Amino acid sequence: MDTNLELTEPFDAAALAARLPNEYVADSVEILNQCSPEEAVEVLALLPLDRAIDIFDQPGLDEPAELIHMMPRPLATAILEGMSADQRADIFRRLDSSECDDLLSALKADTRTSISQLLAYPKHSAGSLMTTEFVSVPATWTVAQTLEHIRLVERTRETVYSIYVLDPKSKTLLKAVPLRKLITGEPSASIVSITPPRKPLYVTPLMDREEVARLISKYDLLALPVVDAKHHVLGIVTVDDIIDAIVQEGTEDAQKFGGMEALDQPYMEIGIFEMLRKRGGWLAVLFLGEMLTANAMQYFEGELEKAIVLTLFIPLIMSSGGNSGSQATSLIIRALALGEIRLRDWWRIALRELPTGMALGAILGVIAVIRITVWQKFGIYDYGEHWLLLALTIGAALVGIVTFGSLSGSMLPFILKRLGFDPASASAPFVATLVDVTGLVIYFTVALIFLRGTLL
Amino acid sequence: MDTNLELTEPFDAAALAARLPNEYVADSVEILNQCSPEEAVEVLALLPLDRAIDIFDQPGLDEPAELIHMMPRPLATAILEGMSADQRADIFRRLDSSECDDLLSALKADTRTSISQLLAYPKHSAGSLMTTEFVSVPATWTVAQTLEHIRLVERTRETVYSIYVLDPKSKTLLKAVPLRKLITGEPSASIVSITPPRKPLYVTPLMDREEVARLISKYDLLALPVVDAKHHVLGIVTVDDIIDAIVQEGTEDAQKFGGMEALDQPYMEIGIFEMLRKRGGWLAVLFLGEMLTANAMQYFEGELEKAIVLTLFIPLIMSSGGNSGSQATSLIIRALALGEIRLRDWWRIALRELPTGMALGAILGVIAVIRITVWQKFGIYDYGEHWLLLALTIGAALVGIVTFGSLSGSMLPFILKRLGFDPASASAPFVATLVDVTGLVIYFTVALIFLRGTLL
Repeated sequence: MDTNLELTEPFDAAALAARLPNEYVADSVEILNQCSPEEAVEVLALLPLDRAIDIFDQPGLDEPAELIHMMPRPLATAILEGMSADQRADIFRRLDSSECDDLLSALKADTRTSISQLLAYPKHSAGSLMTTEFVSVPATWTVAQTLEHIRLVERTRETVYSIYVLDPKSKTLLKAVPLRKLITGEPSASIVSITPPRKPLYVTPLMDREEVARLISKYDLLALPVVDAKHHVLGIVTVDDIIDAIVQEGTEDAQKFGGMEALDQPYMEIGIFEMLRKRGGWLAVLFLGEMLTANAMQYFEGELEKAIVLTLFIPLIMSSGGNSGSQATSLIIRALALGEIRLRDWWRIALRELPTGMALGAILGVIAVIRITVWQKFGIYDYGEHWLLLALTIGAALVGIVTFGSLSGSMLPFILKRLGFDPASASAPFVATLVDVTGLVIYFTVALIFLRGTLL
Repeated sequence: MDTNLELTEPFDAAALAARLPNEYVADSVEILNQCSPEEAVEVLALLPLDRAIDIFDQPGLDEPAELIHMMPRPLATAILEGMSADQRADIFRRLDSSECDDLLSALKADTRTSISQLLAYPKHSAGSLMTTEFVSVPATWTVAQTLEHIRLVERTRETVYSIYVLDPKSKTLLKAVPLRKLITGEPSASIVSITPPRKPLYVTPLMDREEVARLISKYDLLALPVVDAKHHVLGIVTVDDIIDAIVQEGTEDAQKFGGMEALDQPYMEIGIFEMLRKRGGWLAVLFLGEMLTANAMQYFEGELEKAIVLTLFIPLIMSSGGNSGSQATSLIIRALALGEIRLRDWWRIALRELPTGMALGAILGVIAVIRITVWQKFGIYDYGEHWLLLALTIGAALVGIVTFGSLSGSMLPFILKRLGFDPASASAPFVATLVDVTGLVIYFTVALIFLRGTLL
């Protein structure tokens, strides 16, 4: 249902500046993203200031820092002063430190303080996501006073749908009231009288965005206050910022699970060298790990020469271990991310994956035995006089390898999380590499047990 | 920051029923989920009706259909009449048809109509996610009239933060007004005078939830109206339902990408046989595909016997193809899901992946040549007199296989999408299987070119 936003005509700054105020802000951003930075600055300068500010408040704008840097200083300052605190801090996060200092000096003192406070929080923390534009009122106010206050400040607040009630003396957070309760309340009633009986939900500034997302989603909130150790409200995280965070987190996890560094940028926009770096690094590391398979093969070279027929099934056996490992890993990464299971549950998972892996391995083992028997009996391929022993070797090796794959694939995310890494780094290729090397050792060990005295 | 919700004491229905109204509804649900269905029904019967209704309005409640089925009929009817339309329809979606008919007959006529309308929409469509409890007013009303109306209906509406303005005669959707604009507006002003100039955003009932999520996230909406062909509002999709949908969609995609069917249930809650079915099915299909590697190996058996040294690198070469394919697939699946790229962009992607794959393959090829040279020169392993030719074979094969892996891994999601499947079904194991078979053929072909007359 989006209208067509592609720019087909030659660039005309005045025409665009006249058109943008009639579009949704998100659409204006999409149109500006198609312009060169020089063109975008030209259009922004012609727009009404509050419209330009709205555009910079959208997280979808490409390279906002570059635009701010390129535009006339008075315009840059006006936009920075007017925009929401979280998006503004994000711009300063992307600027060089010399540009930062330069721009900061032109801003008001309390804007500077707000920026440096927000920049102090680590990436992806509640503090770095929050905005400081929220509505708070002392607990002594009435419903009518609060509504009057909201009417006055509405323009400058990111959301007015959650109102935070503070202790009039200590300014600590007492309650949160949704606006819907306020408009149905008696105007002369005390604001405290219409608040829900429960203590308000809140997060601390260092909490990870995944945890914030979990709370907002569980309690169906529109915003969540961020409080310091003394229960002063530092800011709020709003539901639209959290949706962006959930989507980004999903993208990063998917890319990591695919065996690469998270891109941080849309696929079509990232430069080819950046792409090579993000993919080549992990690919080379996995390659070095996978080289151990060559060592394992060299170690069993004697067996390989005696029974070349064993090599025929190496790809099949290795891939089965990798596939069962990928399955288990993707399950556990996601369950950990959603908070369905916790670190201390690892042994419960192991107890489930052990029989699951054995059963899955048995299914594949039976298929393999049937396959070899059919090929042998129908004369499609001759596996030699010991074909049945060979078939049993393959079947038994599959049980061992799929069990090992499921077990190590499910435990790897726990180990990574315990060591302080992101469990999503347990990528499908990482698990496959781990299982490949061990899988070869399991295969040849089973072969030595079953085939000693016959083929080996 | 969740409080401890685990039930440690022996079950006491009266005590729980006294405790639950002081908890957040989402926490009450978590507590009830720990009870047996019989216990949960006992507690629910003791709760105030509006609290029981709130609990059934939460998507987190396990087995709501079973609870409704088990409880006394008058209570079940009262809860069903009181709950929100979308969650109610969800319960009927899970009931057997005989139970459905039985319960439906006890409900009011317009409740029955609402249920059958919602059930008619396909799973994951906007229609199946929407609720019919929204606020709409005729365009002839004033701000004060609208606010008064909201005060009256607030209790029965899922959200009052978006108000839909309808044409007084045709009842078609004209505008959407956020509540914040309403409370800052002049009471005597016409509601139309405070609406934004743009046409309202909307979706159609058959639109997929992924598209609804994209719009809500792009335009930072709290709700999105669902309209029929005549622009009548059928219902609204709220942001909290969409967050649940985004998270579920992410879980399904992650599980599919891991090479299994989506579970639809939390990991710890799914039965072991259900789990085996969801994992074993795909694992067996992949295994059958991977059996082609045995055919490929059998085809090249003559070459293998002549040059056993070639087998040493099979696992290394195969896995590199699979890993580069996984990377490319995870990138493209995600970019397609986010709408960053479209089906018609496939050739742009191919033009990017071709040089990327060649460069990545060259990096791995160089590492492999160095590895073989070092092992040979330092006497760690003897690859024979033609070791340099062998090293070049491995290097060249890696360029070919990684290029093929990147290219086929990136194109597979497009092909699946074009054929009407979910691109996320292009799992890492699926890509690995595809690349493994082709990788072996590439490897032996390169070997025949480089080593004919020496080793082969």
